[in-house]
Formats: sequence, C-alpha cells, structure tokens
Amino acid sequence: MQKDKIVLSGMRPTGKLHLGNFHGALKNWVALQDKYNCYFFVADLHSLTTAYEHTENLAENSRNMLIDWLTAGLDPEKSTIFIQSDVPEVSELNTLLGMITPLGWLLRNPTYKEQIQELLKQKYAGQLDEKSLGEKINSIAGDEEISSFGFLGYPVLMATDILIQQAAYVPVGKDQTAHLEIARDLARRFAEIYGEAVFTEPAPLYTEVARVPGLDGRKMSKSYHNAINLGEDLDSVRKKVMTMFTDPNKKKATDPANPEGCVVYAFHRIYNPNAAKRCEECKAGALGCVACKKELFALMEPEMKAFSERRKLFENDEALLQKIVAIGKDRARANAAKTLATVKKVMRITR
Amino acid sequence: MQKDKIVLSGMRPTGKLHLGNFHGALKNWVALQDKYNCYFFVADLHSLTTAYEHTENLAENSRNMLIDWLTAGLDPEKSTIFIQSDVPEVSELNTLLGMITPLGWLLRNPTYKEQIQELLKQKYAGQLDEKSLGEKINSIAGDEEISSFGFLGYPVLMATDILIQQAAYVPVGKDQTAHLEIARDLARRFAEIYGEAVFTEPAPLYTEVARVPGLDGRKMSKSYHNAINLGEDLDSVRKKVMTMFTDPNKKKATDPANPEGCVVYAFHRIYNPNAAKRCEECKAGALGCVACKKELFALMEPEMKAFSERRKLFENDEALLQKIVAIGKDRARANAAKTLATVKKVMRITR
Repeated sequence: MQKDKIVLSGMRPTGKLHLGNFHGALKNWVALQDKYNCYFFVADLHSLTTAYEHTENLAENSRNMLIDWLTAGLDPEKSTIFIQSDVPEVSELNTLLGMITPLGWLLRNPTYKEQIQELLKQKYAGQLDEKSLGEKINSIAGDEEISSFGFLGYPVLMATDILIQQAAYVPVGKDQTAHLEIARDLARRFAEIYGEAVFTEPAPLYTEVARVPGLDGRKMSKSYHNAINLGEDLDSVRKKVMTMFTDPNKKKATDPANPEGCVVYAFHRIYNPNAAKRCEECKAGALGCVACKKELFALMEPEMKAFSERRKLFENDEALLQKIVAIGKDRARANAAKTLATVKKVMRITR
Repeated sequence: MQKDKIVLSGMRPTGKLHLGNFHGALKNWVALQDKYNCYFFVADLHSLTTAYEHTENLAENSRNMLIDWLTAGLDPEKSTIFIQSDVPEVSELNTLLGMITPLGWLLRNPTYKEQIQELLKQKYAGQLDEKSLGEKINSIAGDEEISSFGFLGYPVLMATDILIQQAAYVPVGKDQTAHLEIARDLARRFAEIYGEAVFTEPAPLYTEVARVPGLDGRKMSKSYHNAINLGEDLDSVRKKVMTMFTDPNKKKATDPANPEGCVVYAFHRIYNPNAAKRCEECKAGALGCVACKKELFALMEPEMKAFSERRKLFENDEALLQKIVAIGKDRARANAAKTLATVKKVMRITR
C-alpha cells in the first residue's frame, strides 16, 4: 500500500470502450485504486494534437469515456477522475514548461517521427509517389494540416499532466517510455535552471495486462465490429459469446481440437480459474464448443452484469455524472494549483 | 471616439522605463485611452520566451513596469491594466491555438529567424567560426538553451493575447506586422476549421511617435547611462538637462550653431511649441546653450513634476498598487473568459 504515492494515467476520448480496453488497461486502473492515490483523466486536449479538425463529438466522447470508466469500476470515492480541459492549471504549466523545453528534444522524439510518418502516409496514400512522400516526411514543417505546433508539443503537454499532479508512477506500455523520459528530463531541467526541485520525478509502472482477441480472432476493435462493449446488455453479450471463433477443424462435439487461436479459450484463460484443465479437455475432445461457450458466458456473467448495471446507472443519471465530474475537477484543480503556485514562485513570476 | 473598439498592447518587463520609452510608446498609449477601450498588459510570460534562465527580477520588474505606466499617465479608471500571467485564460487559449497553428508558419516567421540569429551570435561570439555558427543558425533545433519550444511559439502567445481580448486594433511598429499577421491568420483559420468566426480580426494601428535621443546624443538606453527615467526627481532631471550634448563648435553664447544633432534642440522639438523659432535663434547665435537648456527644463518641468509625484504616490502605496493590479486582473479575466468559453464551445470541448 502506497496511498501517499500518486499514480496518474489518461486516455484520449476516441469513442466507446470495449472488453479489449478493459483487460488491456482499465482493469489495471481499477486494481491500482486500492494501492495508490490515483488520478485518471480524459485527455481531451491531447486528442486535439492530431484530430483538431474533427471535434464534432469531442465533448460527447469525453462524457462517454467517463461513463465507460465508471462502468469498468473506477470509483470517484477512491480516485480523482477528471477531464483534462477542466483544469486550466494544466494549460498554464504547459505554457511555462514549453519555455524551458529545447526544441531538439521534441524534434528527436521517436514517437513524434513515427506518428507524423503514419499520418502523412494515411493522408497521401495513392496521391504522392514514394519520393515526394519521403521529402514531406523529412521536412520539419511537413504538412500544414498535420504538423501543428501543438502536435510537436504534445510531449510537453503530457509531461505537464504528470508533473502538475506530482505523480510518482505512470502506468505505461513499453512504447510510451519516451514520453515519460521527457517528463523526467523536464523535472530535472527545471530544478537545474531554477535551483529548486519542484516536481516529483515520475517512474514507469510496468504492469501485466491481458490481450483479448475480438469475436473473430482478430484484434478487438470497434472498426472490425468484433467487440464486446463495456456494459453491453447481457443478452447481447451472450449472443456474441455464442458466435466466437473456434477451431474450424472441430466438426463434432467429440472431435479433439486446438485451443490455440480459439477465441473462447482465450477468454477462458481470463475468466476461468481452471483454464489449464479446459485446455486439456479441449485437446481431448471432452466437450463441444457450444457447452464450452455457455460455460464461458456463465463465468463472465457476474462481471458483465455489474458492468451493465453500472452503465445504466450512470447513463441515466446526468446529475450524478455531473457531480462526479465536478468533484474530480475540484480535486484535480486543487492538487494542480499547489504545484503551479510553487512553480510561479520559483520562476519568480510571482513574489 | 471608438470607445466600443478594443485596443491592446503589451510590453515585456525588462526594467525601469525612461523618457525614450515614454515618447516612443507610452505617450501614445496615454492618448489612446480617451479614444478606445484600452487593454495594456505587462508581458511577463513573453519575457520567458527568451530570458527563461534569468528570471531573478521578473516579478519585481513587472511591478516596476506597472508603476512606470501609472507614472506615465495610464489610468486604471480609463483602461484595463494587467499582468499577463494573472490571466490563466491566456494560457488556456494559447494551448488550444497551438493545436491549429501550422509549424511552417512559425518556422517561416522572419522575426523568429532574425532573433535566433542575433541570440546565437551573441552567445557564441568569438567561440565559433563563421561556418559552425552558420550551421547552428540553419539547423532548426539550433541551440539547446536558445531554441526552446516556447520561443518558437511566441507568435502564438502574442496572437492569443490579442485574440482573447477581441482587440480591434494593435498599435504596432513597422517591424511587428508579421506578428499581427499570424494573429489575423489564426483568427481566419479558426473560423475556417470550426465554421464560426469567434475572433475579431485585429488591424494595425500605426501612430506617429517621437524618437528621443539620450543625453549624449546616442539612442536613449539604460545601458548607455544616458537616460532620464520616468518619474526621476526634478533636481536630478534639471542636472541631466544641463549636461545634454550640444553643437561642440559653439564655444561662446553668441556663436551661431547647428541645431541638428543637438540633444537640447531634439527635446525642444517635443516640449517647445515654438521649436521652429528656436531653431532659427540657434542658427543665428541669438542665445547661449545654458539659457536654452534652462528654458527647456522649464518647459519640461510640469510633466516631469507630474511624473515624479505620481511615481512617489504609487511607489509608496503598495495597497493602492495591489488594488489596481487586482482590478485589472478581474477585468482582463472577465473579458478573456467570455472569448474562451465561446472557443471551447465551438471546438466542442464543452457542450
């Protein structure tokens, strides 16, 4: 138990979440709540770094993401759950930290380079030949729509989110360590320039997460229409479980089969404490896929029921949702304001 | 009279102001107060774009600049006088506008290029040969200390200051039109992307200002020790006037002299309604320099007396100063908050 240590994490509000997101991240967040002082935020400003032209559903997506989080079990009594743009202190510190961030750090950031390459390829697919595309990728100014000042600066904004809340740990995937490095480097650089270590240096919190396939065996994804949504109603989940991809070579219930690649088995490994036994049964042809699926659903049902009930609760009680948003905002602002006041004093902006 | 039109201008707090600053800018501001709804701000955040490593006196300089402004005749009952960092809405909009600002606009900004060249030359004077310096100048990342993200983004911050207050006019020198262009371009770009023209497009307000030489005939500047400070006490001003540089060829009071290049005559042109007559008298050798200087001081005395009295008032009444700061802050925030709320709605960050 390190309830005095702050853990911070955020997600861009891109749309409804599914069981893939739950097992890949949210389940870990739910568990962290009992161990740390957690801050979880809807990163709506971050989504503007790449999608500033498509904000039609931004506020709606932020609201839905909050509902998804509450559905998954994030608890406003245990954690501070807030929307990034609700905390003006973040933008204030973002502006200040930008002043001390060397441009070279941002231009050399490998994630930035990869992302810009990806976005340029998407935009100009079939329109530009290899050479012209390569030139665009290598030019710093890149493309007027894609290469925005805010896009280049998103590691600063990310560092700000972390540093302003004095996070000791940030749950990260292996591909996000570069961002954490910039946050750590900025914390140190600030201390060097102004002679006072105002910020906690955040450390990565590597945690094991499970990868859940979609109904068809591909990656679970909204766009593949192979997802089970968080809080989907029970009947719908049951039907989806019954359509899960299994070993196509197993024709009869008594055929032995290969559980590797079977979606039902992949879910058993998460929901069934006796998954190893099931693996053997499957290989031996001890039971049919229909029975196996029914059993899986029975194992999933309690969690799915809890999700579905919580979703209904929060979806239908706007006042409750607004109250949760307001509480999260107040807590996040209060904590951020403390850091910001110290920063302004140390930088001699205020006396 | 266009009291419904907002005029906005700011200055970086670099230290005490002198008569050169008064005639070159502040006198114009004082006059604008009666014609427009004026917003004047101490640009403390801007000073961080280049001087983030030297903030020891930042808060003190901001306070002194306010005193200088009040000394010069800026009137908190007529104008909104505030400190930039007192308005968090500025940082919020700065973060948002950064998202839609093409990197190319900033990299092509001629003032940025010139400034970075200037700063690099200063820093590496005598340390780097021509070629290495040239390479540094041409590389985007430039120098780790100088080329900061905030420095590259200062036209965005400047545009934010203007747009958030809905300024219709910005008093500019000819060299600052590039910044105003970015503000205008950003106002239009925002309207194109989000389909709503939220910002007033600011127009330049060219006004005639007088150039005042220093006591020795060079540019008036603190570092040349040739300045008359705003609100300097009368005895001290009198003494300084008596040391002003005159035509060295005039040895006797009756010698004819050349008023061009004479500092006393430069000041007569500002303070003496009959300067043309004095020009003739000087050329004819009709009076001596001592008499001419005494007359100049007599002409300057009422203004110098008013300055000196106002400086004493504000310097010695911290409560009054704080009240003025608080009033300016409230007014600037209220006006900025209106713009920001609309922006967030139009960008769909809020519903």
